[in-house]
Amino acid sequence: MAAPSNQPVYRATTTAPVNIAVIKYWGKRDTTLNLPTNSSLSVTLSQRSLRTLTTASCSPSYPAEDTLNLNGKPQEIQSSKRTLACLSNLRALRKSLEDADSSLPKLSTFHLRIVSENNFPTAAGLASSAAGFAALVRAVADLYQLPQSPQELSRIARQGSGSACRSLMGGYVAWRSGELADGSDSLAEEVAPASHWPEMRALVLVVSAEKKDVPSTEGMQTTVATSELFAQRVSSVVPERMTAIEDAIRVRDFPKFAEITMRDSNTFHATCLDSWPPIFYMNDVSRAAVRLVHDINRAVGRTVAAYTYDAGPNSVIYYEEKDSELVAGTVKAILGTNITGWDGPFYEPLANLTAPGVALENIDTRVLDALKTGISRVILTGVGEGPISVEDHLVSETGEMVNQ
Amino acid sequence: MAAPSNQPVYRATTTAPVNIAVIKYWGKRDTTLNLPTNSSLSVTLSQRSLRTLTTASCSPSYPAEDTLNLNGKPQEIQSSKRTLACLSNLRALRKSLEDADSSLPKLSTFHLRIVSENNFPTAAGLASSAAGFAALVRAVADLYQLPQSPQELSRIARQGSGSACRSLMGGYVAWRSGELADGSDSLAEEVAPASHWPEMRALVLVVSAEKKDVPSTEGMQTTVATSELFAQRVSSVVPERMTAIEDAIRVRDFPKFAEITMRDSNTFHATCLDSWPPIFYMNDVSRAAVRLVHDINRAVGRTVAAYTYDAGPNSVIYYEEKDSELVAGTVKAILGTNITGWDGPFYEPLANLTAPGVALENIDTRVLDALKTGISRVILTGVGEGPISVEDHLVSETGEMVNQ
Repeated sequence: MAAPSNQPVYRATTTAPVNIAVIKYWGKRDTTLNLPTNSSLSVTLSQRSLRTLTTASCSPSYPAEDTLNLNGKPQEIQSSKRTLACLSNLRALRKSLEDADSSLPKLSTFHLRIVSENNFPTAAGLASSAAGFAALVRAVADLYQLPQSPQELSRIARQGSGSACRSLMGGYVAWRSGELADGSDSLAEEVAPASHWPEMRALVLVVSAEKKDVPSTEGMQTTVATSELFAQRVSSVVPERMTAIEDAIRVRDFPKFAEITMRDSNTFHATCLDSWPPIFYMNDVSRAAVRLVHDINRAVGRTVAAYTYDAGPNSVIYYEEKDSELVAGTVKAILGTNITGWDGPFYEPLANLTAPGVALENIDTRVLDALKTGISRVILTGVGEGPISVEDHLVSETGEMVNQ
Repeated sequence: MAAPSNQPVYRATTTAPVNIAVIKYWGKRDTTLNLPTNSSLSVTLSQRSLRTLTTASCSPSYPAEDTLNLNGKPQEIQSSKRTLACLSNLRALRKSLEDADSSLPKLSTFHLRIVSENNFPTAAGLASSAAGFAALVRAVADLYQLPQSPQELSRIARQGSGSACRSLMGGYVAWRSGELADGSDSLAEEVAPASHWPEMRALVLVVSAEKKDVPSTEGMQTTVATSELFAQRVSSVVPERMTAIEDAIRVRDFPKFAEITMRDSNTFHATCLDSWPPIFYMNDVSRAAVRLVHDINRAVGRTVAAYTYDAGPNSVIYYEEKDSELVAGTVKAILGTNITGWDGPFYEPLANLTAPGVALENIDTRVLDALKTGISRVILTGVGEGPISVEDHLVSETGEMVNQ
């Protein structure tokens, strides 16, 4: 694997975050370009908790093939149209630079060695492909020293995995569906930076392993093709919600943000159920967490928590830091401290809790039982920044993979 | 309680069936008159399995109040606007007869004693109010010797409980939503008698007791008021399905009937999930039965079974008698014979089964586990007739309640 010492190895390393949508992406109008049927909006989660770390490197000494190693495993890059699309787009941009300035090294002609690692288990059911493709695109763009903005790069990341385009930015990120057939206007856009509303917290309730029934790529196209309610979601429901939630973010109106988030999760899963054959991602544990959130909000007398569900049974519960005790504190009291996840950078407000924020007699006992037996771990995090350029490369100066 | 011997006691007794909708009634456009937002269609289930038996009686000797006894318990009739509406409508019709023919006894001036019994537990989660109000209206109409047709009486029964209007007829029954504000065109109509397609079978899988979360009367109005997908169901989805399923019934096309039935159940529950706050009636056991039906149909290679869910977790699985082994036989092999319900008039095709109709390796093991632990009893029945006039009165010749 070592490169001859006289051959340079070029490297760039970046981190990229996970994002969790509050207005859901579900359905493509173009499956090759990953153009969505509707706009979506997400919260970028802090990389202090969850991140992908990716090094892109290239060298004239590398063997005659691009390679990608993910979590220690070589990937079949040549069979992944999506990865190839990203790389060829990025190479073309580098090529333009090289054509314009002959003093630049011809990186576009070298093969790539890309190494990527997630700091969270795939089994956590988080959308690792979003962070993965965002990191891949950002790392190669950095390696190639491309001048394109994150928004311009989002056009490329989108072709890797739709929701990856939203992981190129921090804070509150919209993905505008766009209207053009070539997808050139289907881009991510920062609605507000993390610093605008830094108090946003997210508590992930990881449901004890259950195999996902229908992969989301397949599931969403089943919905597009068969759900008779889906068109209504696309044409009317989502556009109204996008406007409303952007307003809520602008003025940091948590109750409004929360209601739209919960309702959009419900509508998304409703269109899954309305698909043929029907698609179920939520299970009884998910339902219990829905009820928990409604019970907490009812007991507190204001909306302090919001649930959302992606294509799986895990809950993500959004709340504001000031309500940590009421929300995460109540969940902690229910689940106990034997499960993993009650630690890390966002744990401080909960460290010394002695009682649940909301007395457990306010919660349906069936809900308590379902959560106690059904949740295997939690992840406590909050809103965070976009990709960050770092120096802890996963490829050595001589081109060898580094074990972290 | 005994009436003085010189005072006559008038009596009429009827049975009435349960019906299970295949196009769901969900949502009222008028809550007083029980006018629905959309038409619906149901299969009347055989009274050899499930029936309400009701005697209506009246006498000048009865104390100064109408009374209703249901399953041995006196009911608060005066606080039930729905019951009062039915009785006052029926009395008015009787009064017209008496006004036109002075030789008729003045039954409309006597108080009513109504006694009703179900032969199935309320806990079975079947819509007992439909059978109950249909029997009440039919029995009083018989007592009053009203000339009105079942369709005309359906206008009255509907005011007791919407779906009751469909239990006044046998076979395949549509409830036309109507358009008039006074509800005079919101009537039940026999699409086909049971004899047209007598092979239709229904297997009810009763899920181990779980308290219903939201009563359907409340739930449906939450959906009307809050679901942003609901209007689409009402204006477009249901009208198309009504036409299509009536065609399927006309030509006895089971696969078509089945697909529409399943899809409409899914759409109905999707609008529940899309309500705010969301309403969940199906649970993990219900989901398992959905998958079972899809797995059976896939294994057989044609659509032999159809699920449908009302406002609760119980499955009703429709199939044709010729496919008893494939459908009910497979369920029996999964659930075993320790649970109640594997008997009765529709059991014969299954009595001597030694192996499941569909080999259990075709069924997801999680489905098998969920059903085995989650189903407490089955009810095996089929399409059947409407109300039947009978002589086993629940009130004696002298006006006393008879214990059955």
